[in-house]
Amino acid sequence: MRIGILGYGNLGKGVESAVRQNNDMELTCIITRRDPKSIKPQTDGVAVISVDEIEKAKDFVDVLVLCGGSATDLPIQTPEFAKCFNVIDSFDTHAKIPQHFANVDAAAKENGHIALISCGWDPGMFSILRLYGSAVLPEGNDYTFWGKGVSQGHSDAIRRVKGVKNGKQYTIPVDEALKSVRNGENPTLTTRQKHTRECFVVAEDGADLNQIENDIKTMPNYFDEYDTTVHFITEEEFLKNHAGIPHGGFVFRSGVTGLNKENKHVIEYSLKLDSNPEFTSSVILAFARAIFRMKHEGVTGCKTVFDIAPAYLSPLSGEELRAHML
Amino acid sequence: MRIGILGYGNLGKGVESAVRQNNDMELTCIITRRDPKSIKPQTDGVAVISVDEIEKAKDFVDVLVLCGGSATDLPIQTPEFAKCFNVIDSFDTHAKIPQHFANVDAAAKENGHIALISCGWDPGMFSILRLYGSAVLPEGNDYTFWGKGVSQGHSDAIRRVKGVKNGKQYTIPVDEALKSVRNGENPTLTTRQKHTRECFVVAEDGADLNQIENDIKTMPNYFDEYDTTVHFITEEEFLKNHAGIPHGGFVFRSGVTGLNKENKHVIEYSLKLDSNPEFTSSVILAFARAIFRMKHEGVTGCKTVFDIAPAYLSPLSGEELRAHML
Repeated sequence: MRIGILGYGNLGKGVESAVRQNNDMELTCIITRRDPKSIKPQTDGVAVISVDEIEKAKDFVDVLVLCGGSATDLPIQTPEFAKCFNVIDSFDTHAKIPQHFANVDAAAKENGHIALISCGWDPGMFSILRLYGSAVLPEGNDYTFWGKGVSQGHSDAIRRVKGVKNGKQYTIPVDEALKSVRNGENPTLTTRQKHTRECFVVAEDGADLNQIENDIKTMPNYFDEYDTTVHFITEEEFLKNHAGIPHGGFVFRSGVTGLNKENKHVIEYSLKLDSNPEFTSSVILAFARAIFRMKHEGVTGCKTVFDIAPAYLSPLSGEELRAHML
Repeated sequence: MRIGILGYGNLGKGVESAVRQNNDMELTCIITRRDPKSIKPQTDGVAVISVDEIEKAKDFVDVLVLCGGSATDLPIQTPEFAKCFNVIDSFDTHAKIPQHFANVDAAAKENGHIALISCGWDPGMFSILRLYGSAVLPEGNDYTFWGKGVSQGHSDAIRRVKGVKNGKQYTIPVDEALKSVRNGENPTLTTRQKHTRECFVVAEDGADLNQIENDIKTMPNYFDEYDTTVHFITEEEFLKNHAGIPHGGFVFRSGVTGLNKENKHVIEYSLKLDSNPEFTSSVILAFARAIFRMKHEGVTGCKTVFDIAPAYLSPLSGEELRAHML
């Protein structure tokens, strides 16, 4: 399978390194909006192509991985490039998924390609676990917690505050809430009861620290509904201890069975990830394998992780899976 | 969807109660090897039919759930009844799955039916999680732990020991092993390091308790490779505290990513079940829905949980799933 990458940021670099861990895959090209000469791939023999000449890549890419952002890149790019390629993206604006699906589906079908949108861990693996949980325990409650991990959006928001030089925000699930769900207590949880937010801030020289702290804690949509902690640290400490992009989270399904609903069951799925973009890339490549195979079977149009039978994700054959993994 | 049950033991009763939690399903008949008059269903209007007259059920069963045992029932029943019905079983003798699959596949294909074998939680949900884990993190290790829960096979083994009137065995994962795996330490674990076995025994009057304890702890295959604890309790205590059939367990995938494999990731899936047979039944019904739909699309032959796209399990439409669960 020949993989192409569009966009060489954290996610694109994650795809590049993940390709090396999959023997049936090869990275053939990186497509960029920047000057191709400015891109230095870590892999030998990879073509770097300007997005303006993307059609050149058609003959040597089986699946194109779109590594742009959900706000402005993917709504345009995924339907556009589904015309020329089999594509996969990690579109994560939950509310806009139906529209995105429709756009990509039309473009892919019309041109005989297959596409898969909203791949990664949430949406992605977490979505799959929510679906399995609710199908298996129809009477019950879902809970999703995120963290401990870095929220890019909230870190960006901190950095826009006056007097802030650098900042990083960690989303942290509240322990008592996790325990209650895990015990099958089916709690009703407010936003504040589910997560706390912890911020590490490097202030500009002479900045008003009280003002910064207040501006962060009262920021609408981002922080005002949460218990937020703000730590001021030095640039040195920031670079030393907060360079990574860890993340993770939990999906629970808590339900009952029995003639009198007397038996409780708790399903828990959790991720603890040192690198959010590298894990996301790894999920994307497994699903890239799946859609490549489905394309060979004649499937076209837009798919989501819900539409992919697990066997398609593995390089092992059906016989091998049944013998060793069932 | 009209559901039939073959075998009205713990699993069959679990299917009966689970049908009530799925609005698109109806239990139409119970097929039994016993005298049909001896079966008292908990559901009104259910036909009770002798297995000798099973053909009578053909016209009012869409999927037949086979609730027999893996040792002697299912290897015969599943291929046999796949000739007349769409069937689903929970065959769990891992080593014999390939042969069972081949037998069922031939019978189902020849007669235009669909079948799904080895459904439940292990094999079943745990298998799916092992597959997803290894596909997403190709460089890593799998760990499966069972418990805390009742092992039927080990409880049966205890009850065969001389002087034992009644007994129950709990399989318990070792906490230190769980913690080590959860920390991404990728330990190599012996059988003894993974699980302990705890036995609750009601002895016959005048039995030699030391002999019983020794016979259990040294029993080959069942106990000799484990640290085993034996508690002697009264019949009263046994009935009061050990009537349930709880179970559960953990599936981990622990792997690395990055150009230098510098980032660790841990995926954990766990189940905490008050009733093993009721949860197994609930999983079976979700997959019964899936194969019923796939049959309508023209699919025949034997499938496993690996072959079923998650969307088929849910009563919700593709649009609803994308809008609310992705």
